[in-house]
Amino acid sequence: MSEVQVTFQPSGQRVFVLPGTSLLEAAGRVGIILQTPCGGAGTCGKCLVKVISGDCNAAESCDDTLSDDLINQGYHLACQTKVMGELVVDIPEESMFESRQQILEDDLGAELEVNPVVYKKYFKLDAPTSTDDRSDETRLMDAIGEVEVSIEQLRCMPSLMRNNDWAGTAVLSGDRLLAVEQGDTSGKVYGVAFDIGTTTVVGTLFNLLTGAELAVESQMNGQIAHGDDVISRILKVREDTVALAELQRVIVGTANDIISSLCGKAKIEHDHIYEVAIAGNATMQQIFCGLNPAALGEVPFVQVFDRSLTLQANKLGLLVNVGADLFVMPQIGGFVGGDTVAGMVAARIDKWDKPVLLVDIGTNGEIVLCHDGKLLATSAAAGPAFEGARITQGMRAAAGAIEKVIINGDVEINVIGNVTPVGLCGTALIDAVAGMLRAGVLDETGRILSTDEVDSSMSSLLKDRLIERDGNVDFLLAGTVEKNPIYIYQKDVRELQLANGAIRAAVNILLRRAGVDPADLGYVLLAGAFGNFIRRSNARRIGLLPQVACGAIRFIGNAASLGAKLVLMSSNERQYADELCKRTEHIDLSLDSEFQMEFGMAMIFPDDDFDACIDE
Amino acid sequence: MSEVQVTFQPSGQRVFVLPGTSLLEAAGRVGIILQTPCGGAGTCGKCLVKVISGDCNAAESCDDTLSDDLINQGYHLACQTKVMGELVVDIPEESMFESRQQILEDDLGAELEVNPVVYKKYFKLDAPTSTDDRSDETRLMDAIGEVEVSIEQLRCMPSLMRNNDWAGTAVLSGDRLLAVEQGDTSGKVYGVAFDIGTTTVVGTLFNLLTGAELAVESQMNGQIAHGDDVISRILKVREDTVALAELQRVIVGTANDIISSLCGKAKIEHDHIYEVAIAGNATMQQIFCGLNPAALGEVPFVQVFDRSLTLQANKLGLLVNVGADLFVMPQIGGFVGGDTVAGMVAARIDKWDKPVLLVDIGTNGEIVLCHDGKLLATSAAAGPAFEGARITQGMRAAAGAIEKVIINGDVEINVIGNVTPVGLCGTALIDAVAGMLRAGVLDETGRILSTDEVDSSMSSLLKDRLIERDGNVDFLLAGTVEKNPIYIYQKDVRELQLANGAIRAAVNILLRRAGVDPADLGYVLLAGAFGNFIRRSNARRIGLLPQVACGAIRFIGNAASLGAKLVLMSSNERQYADELCKRTEHIDLSLDSEFQMEFGMAMIFPDDDFDACIDE
Repeated sequence: MSEVQVTFQPSGQRVFVLPGTSLLEAAGRVGIILQTPCGGAGTCGKCLVKVISGDCNAAESCDDTLSDDLINQGYHLACQTKVMGELVVDIPEESMFESRQQILEDDLGAELEVNPVVYKKYFKLDAPTSTDDRSDETRLMDAIGEVEVSIEQLRCMPSLMRNNDWAGTAVLSGDRLLAVEQGDTSGKVYGVAFDIGTTTVVGTLFNLLTGAELAVESQMNGQIAHGDDVISRILKVREDTVALAELQRVIVGTANDIISSLCGKAKIEHDHIYEVAIAGNATMQQIFCGLNPAALGEVPFVQVFDRSLTLQANKLGLLVNVGADLFVMPQIGGFVGGDTVAGMVAARIDKWDKPVLLVDIGTNGEIVLCHDGKLLATSAAAGPAFEGARITQGMRAAAGAIEKVIINGDVEINVIGNVTPVGLCGTALIDAVAGMLRAGVLDETGRILSTDEVDSSMSSLLKDRLIERDGNVDFLLAGTVEKNPIYIYQKDVRELQLANGAIRAAVNILLRRAGVDPADLGYVLLAGAFGNFIRRSNARRIGLLPQVACGAIRFIGNAASLGAKLVLMSSNERQYADELCKRTEHIDLSLDSEFQMEFGMAMIFPDDDFDACIDE
Repeated sequence: MSEVQVTFQPSGQRVFVLPGTSLLEAAGRVGIILQTPCGGAGTCGKCLVKVISGDCNAAESCDDTLSDDLINQGYHLACQTKVMGELVVDIPEESMFESRQQILEDDLGAELEVNPVVYKKYFKLDAPTSTDDRSDETRLMDAIGEVEVSIEQLRCMPSLMRNNDWAGTAVLSGDRLLAVEQGDTSGKVYGVAFDIGTTTVVGTLFNLLTGAELAVESQMNGQIAHGDDVISRILKVREDTVALAELQRVIVGTANDIISSLCGKAKIEHDHIYEVAIAGNATMQQIFCGLNPAALGEVPFVQVFDRSLTLQANKLGLLVNVGADLFVMPQIGGFVGGDTVAGMVAARIDKWDKPVLLVDIGTNGEIVLCHDGKLLATSAAAGPAFEGARITQGMRAAAGAIEKVIINGDVEINVIGNVTPVGLCGTALIDAVAGMLRAGVLDETGRILSTDEVDSSMSSLLKDRLIERDGNVDFLLAGTVEKNPIYIYQKDVRELQLANGAIRAAVNILLRRAGVDPADLGYVLLAGAFGNFIRRSNARRIGLLPQVACGAIRFIGNAASLGAKLVLMSSNERQYADELCKRTEHIDLSLDSEFQMEFGMAMIFPDDDFDACIDE
C-alpha cells in the first residue's frame, strides 16, 4: 500500500500517510493539533475541517453531528474521516488546539484572560509654574495614579519630561513604573513566552493588549554542545566552576536569538517587549537564572527554589526593555519542574469534575493526579527509549523512521517521508509491542515467542517474521532478513518494558496514595510532544496508560508552552501557578521501596485489552 | 574683664567665657546642648549639672526646683548658674539634649522607638533527606517565616547552606531577605544616619538592636571644591554633563570615608551595616542619588521627587552590606528639603497642643508652621549674613570671632578662644544690633544715629563709639579707631536687615495664611547649628523671631540629624516622615507679590521689646 499526500491549508504543510489514516492523525503528524474534547468519538464536533479537493471517507456518525449545511459546504470531522487518496484540506482556526481555548472554554467554561501585568498610559502634563511647583514624580503620579518609581526611572525623568514638552507614555507593571517613553507608544506592548526544553527552546511573541500571537520561533538549546540531557549538564557544573556561568550565557544567548528573530518577523522593537515568561524543567530554569543545579544531580534531588520568581530580565542579559520583568514558573520538585506546573495551569488540573491524571511522557515522565482538590505529583525516569534511544534500530521521529505499525494478520507500517525505512521511533515501538501482544507473538512477561510456541492458528505471514538466533527471537518489522531489515529485537522489548514500567509504576503509586481506582479516573490528559502522537489504545494495551475509555484520554498538546503563554498574559494565572505548586504534594519515588516493588510488577504487560479507540 | 576657663566632664571639652555667663550657654559653646524644655526658666530641672570644683553663682530659684539632697551633692541648674571663675563641671547624660529624649518624652510623652526595619534570625536547619526534599528556599522559609528572596540571595544559598552544615544567620528587612551569613551573627546589626549638609556631613553609627549610639564622625562635604553653596553646584551640573556623576562620586566618597572611620572607631565590619538613612536639602539629596538637580536652580525650583526613597545602598557605591538599603528623606519643595522633614519628624511638629513654628535659620531659612493639624512650610533666602559673610568684618564662629555682645552703658564682648578679636560672627551681629536698638544708637529703619541725633542722656562711652565718616555712622564694637578696631558698619546693618527681613516676612506670611496671630503661637522651635546659639531675646528684638515669651522659644538642637536617626531606627518613623511631607502645603514665596511687600515692611525693626530671657 503506498502513501498519499495530504496538504493542509492555510499553512500549506504536507504529509504522506497510508490510506485509511484519520485526518486527525495526519494533521497531528505535521504538528497541527486539533481540538478533540470528546477524545475523537465524533460527538463534540470540534475537529471540524473543510475538504477542498481529493478523496476521503467520512464515517456515518458525522451526519448526526454536523448540520446538512456544513456537510454541503464540505465540512468533515477530522476524527471520523479517513484519507483515501491525495487530499487538500482547510483547517479553520477554531478547530486548532493552539487557539488554546479548548480546555479553558469547552471543558471548563473559563475564558482566556488577557490581563497582563504590564500596561501603558499616555500622558500630557502641565509644565511647572510658580504656583505649581510639584515635583516631577508627583506631577506624573497625579496624571497616571500613585505608583512605585525606581531610582533609574527618577534619573531619566527630569530631562525626558523637559525635552518632550511634558508628554509621553508611562509603562506600568502592576503598581510599578517600568519606563517612561517619548511620544505615544501606548499601542505597543509585547511579551514573549518561552518553553525552555533540554533540547529545544520555543519562544512565542504576543501582543499583550489583545492577546494575539504574533510570531513563533524555535531553536536548538545551545547547551546541547555541553551534553544531551540534564544530568550531563549538571555534572559539568559540578566539575567546572565556570560552567554554570557558561551554560547560563548559552541559554540566554539562545533566548536572545529567538527574541531577535521574533522581533524581525513581527517588525517590532526589542524595547517594546516588557514581559518575558519561561517554563522549563528545574535544571533548565535554575541554569537560566544562574542558580546552581548541582543538588539536582544527586539524591534527594533538591531544588533551590519552588515559588515563582520575578526577576529583572535585563539583569540576566535578555535583550528586551531595560525595565522588563522575567517571570519564572514555580517548580514542585527536582524532576517535577516549571514545565509541569505550566502544564497543570494550562490543564486547569484542579477544575475537573472527576479524578484527573496529567501525564507527560518523555525521558523523564511527569505525572500529576488531582482528586477531590488534592494534588499529587511525581516523576519517573523512563529513560530515552520512547525517543528511540537504546533501541537497536531506534531513531527520532525524522524522515525514514517507521512511526506507525498496525499488526493485523500481517504488518503494515507508515514511514515518515514515505521512503524506505531506516529505523523506528517511539510511537512505532509502542504500536509494534501492543500489536505483538494482541497477535500473541509476545507474552505478558515480554518474551517474543518462537514459531513453535505461538498459537498454531497464527498467520504464516506473521510466523515468518519470528527470527530465532542466539536463543532469542526477534521480530522482523520491515524489509527482509536479507535486505533493509528492521527488527523489534527481544532486547528492545526489554528496554520498552523498563521505560513503560517506570511510568506505569509511578501512575499506580499515585493512584493508590490518593485512593483512586483506575476505573474511577475521569480523564487522562496527555501533554507534551510525544504524548500527542501515540496511539491511545496501544499505549493503554502495554499499560503505559491506565485502562480507561478512549473518550477519557485527551491530547492537550504542548501544555507547558500553553501554560507559559497563560502566565505571560495574566497576573491571575501567575497566582494560580503558585497556588497549584504550593498545594501539590511532591512524591519522590527515587528511593522508595514501594516503587521498586511496583516497578518490578509493572514490567509485566497487562493481560487484558480494552475498547479500541475508533479514531486510530 | 578677663575670661575664665570652664571644663566639661566626662568629655573634657574646654571653653573660655566671661564671668557671668550661664553654664547653659558655656556648654552650648562647645556643642554640648542641654535640655531646656522650660526655655531656661529654671523650672523644669532638666539641665542638671554637677559642679566638681571652682567658682559659680546659682540663682535662688534653683533652691525651689532642686532637692536638698541634689544641692548637697553639688548639682546645679545650668540655666540658673553663672560662671564666676575657673570651673570643672560634670554633665550627666540625662541632661544632654543629644540623649534625644527631650522632645519625645518630656514634651509629648512619646518614647523613642527602636523598631528598625532590619533584624536577624539565627537558624539551624535539617539537612535534606529522601523523605524531605524541600527546596533550599522553602527549607529556610519554614525556619524563619515566609519572606521575599532576591535572585542574588538564591544564588548564594545552595553552597552557603551546604558548606555550613545548614546553619547560619538570616538578615531580614521587613519581609525581605537581605542576606544569609555564616555562623551566628545575630548580635551584629548596625546602621548609619547621615546629615548631609552643603558644607559638613555628619554620620552617626548605631546599634540597631539596642538603639545605642556607637560613634559619630563629621567631615567636610567633598563637594566644597566644586562650589560653596547649592546654587554654584547646580550651575556646575547645568554647564557640564559629567558634573552630576562627579559630584555624586564625591559625596558618596565623603560618606564612605565617614563609614570607614565609624567602623574603625566602633570596631565593627562594614558588612554588618544594613541600613543607611540620609537627610539633606533637596540639592544634596538629589545629587547623592544621582538625580539631576538642574531644575532646582531656576524658577519654579522643581524637585525630582518628594516621597521618601528606599534604594540599594550598594548600587550607589556605599561601602556597606551588599543588601543594605538606603533611606532618603522625603522632601517638600525645592528649598524645603529632607533636612526640614527630618526636623519636623524630630520635633513631632504636629503633636503640640498649640500652634507651633519650626525655624531653621541659615543661608536658606526654612520655616514650618503647624496649626490645628494643618502644616505649612516655606523657605526664605536669607543669604550668608548670619554666617558672617557679606558683613565687613564678619567671620564664621571660629577662634578670634566676637560671638557675644552686651550693650549696657558700654559694650561687653566675648571672643572665641579668649584672644584679641579679629571679626564678629552672626550671633554677635544680632546681639549688637539688638543692643544698639535698645540703647537708641540705631533707629527702626536701621540707620545708625550720629552723636547729634542720639538722646542726650546716652553715656559718653557709647557716644564715643559712633564714628562718622563719608556721611554714614559706624559703630565701634571693639578695639580703638587706631588699633584693632572692629566695627558694625552702617552697611552691615543693612545686610542684617535683608537677611532678617526675609525670615521675618516668611514667618509673617505663614502666620497670616494659617490665620494665626503671633501672640497665639504656643512654641517657636529653633533648629540647626545657628539657631541654637543665638540669644532668643535679641533675635526677638530685631524681629527675627516673633514676639513670644522666652519659655515658648525652645532650642531643639540639630533636629535634621536627630530626624535621620529616628528614621534609621524605626519603620514607623519613616511612615511618619512621608505622612508629614504629604500633609504639608508648600508655599513658594520666591515670586510672590505679597512676599515682596511683606519683605519691605519686615526690613523695619519692631519698635517694641518684650520680656528679657533670664537665662541669657
